[in-house]
Amino acid sequence: MMRLCFVLFVCALLICPAMVAGQGKDREIKVTWDKESPVKKIVSPTKGKVKNVVFMIGDGMSLMTMYSTWAANRGKLNIENCRCVGLAKTYCYDRLITDSGASGTALATGHKTRYHSVGVDPDGKPLTTLTDLAAVKNKSTGVVVTCRLNDATPAAFCAHNSDREQAEAIIADYVGCGVDFIFGGGKRYFCEREDGRDIMEEMRALGYRTPENKEQLDAIESGKVLAVWADHDLPRPAERGEMLTEGTLKALELLSRNKKGFFLMVEASQIDDYGHSNQLRPLVEEVLDFDRTIGKVFEWAAADGNTLVVVTADHETGGLTLVGGDLERGEIVGKFSTGSHSGVMVPVYAFGPGAEAFTGIYENTDIFEKIKSLLKL
Amino acid sequence: MMRLCFVLFVCALLICPAMVAGQGKDREIKVTWDKESPVKKIVSPTKGKVKNVVFMIGDGMSLMTMYSTWAANRGKLNIENCRCVGLAKTYCYDRLITDSGASGTALATGHKTRYHSVGVDPDGKPLTTLTDLAAVKNKSTGVVVTCRLNDATPAAFCAHNSDREQAEAIIADYVGCGVDFIFGGGKRYFCEREDGRDIMEEMRALGYRTPENKEQLDAIESGKVLAVWADHDLPRPAERGEMLTEGTLKALELLSRNKKGFFLMVEASQIDDYGHSNQLRPLVEEVLDFDRTIGKVFEWAAADGNTLVVVTADHETGGLTLVGGDLERGEIVGKFSTGSHSGVMVPVYAFGPGAEAFTGIYENTDIFEKIKSLLKL
Repeated sequence: MMRLCFVLFVCALLICPAMVAGQGKDREIKVTWDKESPVKKIVSPTKGKVKNVVFMIGDGMSLMTMYSTWAANRGKLNIENCRCVGLAKTYCYDRLITDSGASGTALATGHKTRYHSVGVDPDGKPLTTLTDLAAVKNKSTGVVVTCRLNDATPAAFCAHNSDREQAEAIIADYVGCGVDFIFGGGKRYFCEREDGRDIMEEMRALGYRTPENKEQLDAIESGKVLAVWADHDLPRPAERGEMLTEGTLKALELLSRNKKGFFLMVEASQIDDYGHSNQLRPLVEEVLDFDRTIGKVFEWAAADGNTLVVVTADHETGGLTLVGGDLERGEIVGKFSTGSHSGVMVPVYAFGPGAEAFTGIYENTDIFEKIKSLLKL
Repeated sequence: MMRLCFVLFVCALLICPAMVAGQGKDREIKVTWDKESPVKKIVSPTKGKVKNVVFMIGDGMSLMTMYSTWAANRGKLNIENCRCVGLAKTYCYDRLITDSGASGTALATGHKTRYHSVGVDPDGKPLTTLTDLAAVKNKSTGVVVTCRLNDATPAAFCAHNSDREQAEAIIADYVGCGVDFIFGGGKRYFCEREDGRDIMEEMRALGYRTPENKEQLDAIESGKVLAVWADHDLPRPAERGEMLTEGTLKALELLSRNKKGFFLMVEASQIDDYGHSNQLRPLVEEVLDFDRTIGKVFEWAAADGNTLVVVTADHETGGLTLVGGDLERGEIVGKFSTGSHSGVMVPVYAFGPGAEAFTGIYENTDIFEKIKSLLKL
């Protein structure tokens, strides 16, 4: 019996660290990346007028996320073609560690606000967004994301609510937001609502075309677009093909018909999700998908000459550390230290005319101010 | 007996997570910072000739280290006065995750080399360093560190060895290195050697003054200086007062007497040590000590007008994540995820004329090239 006792005690001691490690965080995860993601050398224009801005946000994309993905892709990414780099402070009005609502609001409106607020100030008062300001100057506007459209980042650009969880109210705000090209997920919050409204139908009445797939989207040559292709978030990157790149390129095609220019926000929304769930492989998939889109946008902007591209993140998620790996084999060994967000500055990568304004250290709200100033909004 | 068995089993399950947490890493550590470290607004010159360079290295100082310290100091640091920011890739010749030897060599010589090498190429051949190149142009040179002088970073600037652990051989290299102002620890490797040499004495014979304390150092008004004030590393930051700032300011005073200009390397060496040992409080102490020195150097450079200051790190140590805290209370909650180095780009912060050359994403070896080019070496 004593022996049984001893054996049980030792077993408990042995299995316990495995249980702790099995929680996902604090555990080493190895990913070997077989398929290299294409990367091109793209030279940034240095002069030229800033007529258009593409503002690209990797939700939860830290410097560690970027470098880990760079290593998995055997030491190359399209984002390395950026001309200037800066660092933005991410804390919000009432917390050192922000959420995507408050940080999205900082980027979209230039105001630090409360945790979980979108598009409103700390008192709940609606704020003017970059899409609003661009529209006032008769520029076209767009929002392309891989999450549901009621999620915090697109909501910060198109809606106003002190509670980011109010999905129906946030989606209803799209009716009056005036954004010309809207692409993402969240169909159920448009059409299967407790209040009985059909927001898709209301927006069609306002002139929006609502393509259901790539063929229908490709066929559109002008006018407003609302493309909502999933009930909730878009499928995970390995399953949805090049949907983010295609949506973004279609937005560039349509918005650039406006001679007065445009403002387009593009978000790789799911980096945050895989940071929260501590899943390294889909996280790398989403960052590489984003990087391919960044490459296409840089190419487009280089050809255009009057387009500034700003790539950043709203905050860090997961506390990823790259603890091992091999560049030649595309192998990375990562470790997440939290299932939540962490507090750190996020890099800001800028390409095109005006890029030099984004070097240095500044508040995340200054990114709004810099874009506003360069676009003369 | 069965009950005893059960109790023991449950006890083991309960104590085990505490044992795992007690290891230091993967454990939340809270630090509340009572004493604010002084921070000034300092405006960077934008024009001017680059006559002098101060190259400041935080050993193991990641973006996370910097932001955590920024938060502990209630949201302010002198480093925020930098004018431009870039990102440097840290991998070395034969590993994704470098050590201070290979990364120090990249910064000092512009060559990626093998893990654990200092001042030599992958074949063990000595490389020319920034201090060598500056001396050829009749500029004065200096090295100020808080570690023993045989440690990897100062060794990469002053010595040549394919094994950074060869303390005696590395210290012997100081005899021929020609650097004018040398300040740090490691006295025992100068004077209590297995080969019986007294390197201090040999260097005195070459004209070096060897002050033993601040008073003796203050009294020196010209000539070469070798100040070695500890047997091993300098005391920890809380115990050594403003030794790093004082050594640096004395170096600036003496080196700037040369009308042809100077190159000075300054290292906050112990950030790496407290990253390895997962000690958050002394890590913050060392970064704040470094930041006070950065503030003084920025002030000196702003007054001078022809001095470029470049601040960076050689790599990240400890995989620190800031998981909580409060800006107003100066409270931070950090978590280390490794006792080793991790793989990530390091920010490069530049102040003074020529700073704009340091924005963008580049190799750590490019920092050498940029300094070489701007100083016309």
